[in-house]
Amino acid sequence: MKFGILCASDRCSAGVCEDKSGALLQTLVAPFAAQTEYVLVPDEQAQIETALISLSDDAHADIILTTGGTGFAPRDVTPEATLAVIDRLAPGISEAIRMKSLAITPHAMLSRAVSGIRGKTLIINLPGSPKAVRESFEVIAPIFRHAVETLSGQTQCCGGDYGK
Amino acid sequence: MKFGILCASDRCSAGVCEDKSGALLQTLVAPFAAQTEYVLVPDEQAQIETALISLSDDAHADIILTTGGTGFAPRDVTPEATLAVIDRLAPGISEAIRMKSLAITPHAMLSRAVSGIRGKTLIINLPGSPKAVRESFEVIAPIFRHAVETLSGQTQCCGGDYGK
Amino acid sequence: MKFGILCASDRCSAGVCEDKSGALLQTLVAPFAAQTEYVLVPDEQAQIETALISLSDDAHADIILTTGGTGFAPRDVTPEATLAVIDRLAPGISEAIRMKSLAITPHAMLSRAVSGIRGKTLIINLPGSPKAVRESFEVIAPIFRHAVETLSGQTQCCGGDYGK
Repeated sequence: MKFGILCASDRCSAGVCEDKSGALLQTLVAPFAAQTEYVLVPDEQAQIETALISLSDDAHADIILTTGGTGFAPRDVTPEATLAVIDRLAPGISEAIRMKSLAITPHAMLSRAVSGIRGKTLIINLPGSPKAVRESFEVIAPIFRHAVETLSGQTQCCGGDYGK
Repeated sequence: MKFGILCASDRCSAGVCEDKSGALLQTLVAPFAAQTEYVLVPDEQAQIETALISLSDDAHADIILTTGGTGFAPRDVTPEATLAVIDRLAPGISEAIRMKSLAITPHAMLSRAVSGIRGKTLIINLPGSPKAVRESFEVIAPIFRHAVETLSGQTQCCGGDYGK
Repeated sequence: MKFGILCASDRCSAGVCEDKSGALLQTLVAPFAAQTEYVLVPDEQAQIETALISLSDDAHADIILTTGGTGFAPRDVTPEATLAVIDRLAPGISEAIRMKSLAITPHAMLSRAVSGIRGKTLIINLPGSPKAVRESFEVIAPIFRHAVETLSGQTQCCGGDYGK
C-alpha cells in the first residue's frame, strides 16, 4: 500500500511549531506502507486541494491521511478542501472515529472531519493533536486492506459474494 | 404500507448470481407491507435514479429499501443515485444502521449508505450481503410506522404535540 | 456568550399552541448566556433562513439553537434552511445528539437535524419536543465554551498546541 500524509497547519508550515502528528502518522503507517509521501501546507483551501489531487492522481496513493484543520477556527478548512476533491463520500469512517473519540471526550463532537474517495484513493481527515491522531488511527487501521482491495475491485453481488 | 425493493448489482442483473438480499427483503417486509414492488438494475447511476423515481412518483411506495452498490468499488454508486433524487436528507437512519453494524464488524464503517426523502417516499440504502441486510433491517423496522405517518402529516408543535 | 433561540413552527407562530421548547431553551441557556435573543417563525424555509442570518450577522449570536422542523413532515425544513446559510458543516454535533437519543428511543433516528458554522456563529438544530430538547441540551452544553473560543481563534498546531 502507498500512503499520502498531509499536514495542514499555518504555524507548522511557517516553521513556528513542529508537525508532531505528521511524524507520528509516518510511524503508524509504516507496518502497512510500502511507500509514504509526506506534504506540509498552510491552512489554505486551494493549497490543500492541490496537494490532495497531486497525492491521488500523480503519486497514486491508496490512502491519504490528513492531520490538522478540522476544527472550528476560521482558517480550519481541511474538510472543505476534501469535499471539493472527492467523487464519493464515505461518511461511515468519520462517524466511527468520532464515536470512539466521543467515549474519551465530549470535544470529539467538534471534529468536522470527513472521508471520501477520489478515483482509487481513499482520503480520511484525522484530528490535529498527536493524542487524537493515535486514537483515531486505531479505529481505522483494521479496514485499510479491505478498503484498498475494493477500491479497485468489483462490486459485491446482492447474494453476498465478491466477483472473482 | 407499500414497499419498493431495489437491488443494484451488475452481476445479479446479468443473471451471473442470484439476488438473495432482494429476496430476503421481500420476506422481511411482508409483515409490514400491503404491497411490494421489486426492481433489479445494474450498477448504473442513471438506471438506479430512474428506478427510484418510478418507485416513488409512479408506484407511490411509502418506503424504498435498496440493496447493493454502497461499497468502495468503482461501480458502487447507489448512494450517489439516491442523493441525486432525494429532496431532503435523513442522516440519522444510516448513522443508526452503521452504529449497530460497527458493534459487529469494523467493516461496517465502509458502508457509504445514505437515507432521504423524495416527496412522500422514504429511501433507505441497505448493504449488499444478506447477513448485513438482516442486521440492518432489525435496526430500522421499529421506525417504519412513525416515519410513514409523519411523511404525510403535520409538523410537530414546539410544545411536543402533533397536530390533529 | 450570546445565544439565539429560534423556534420554527407553523402552529406556535399562529398562536395555536405554545412554544414550550423555546421557553425551556431560554431557561437552559441562562447559566451560559450574557444575552439571549428569541425568534418564532412558521415552517417556511425563507423565513427560517432570514432569521438565522439576522441572528448571526446582525445580532452576533455565538450559538444559535433551533427547535422544531427537523422531522419528516412535508413542512419540516429547518435542516434545509440551516444548510442554506452555513459556510461549514459541523456533523459531529448532530451525530452525538442522535447517538445519545438513540439509546433512549429508536425514533431518534428520524431526526434530520444538522449543525454548522456561519461566520463566527455556531448553529445547532435541536428536536421539537421539550423532553428531547432537554436530553439534547445535556449532550451539547459541555462543548459551548470551547466551541465559541475556537470560532474566533487560531487553528491548532499539528503538534497539539493552540496559538497564543
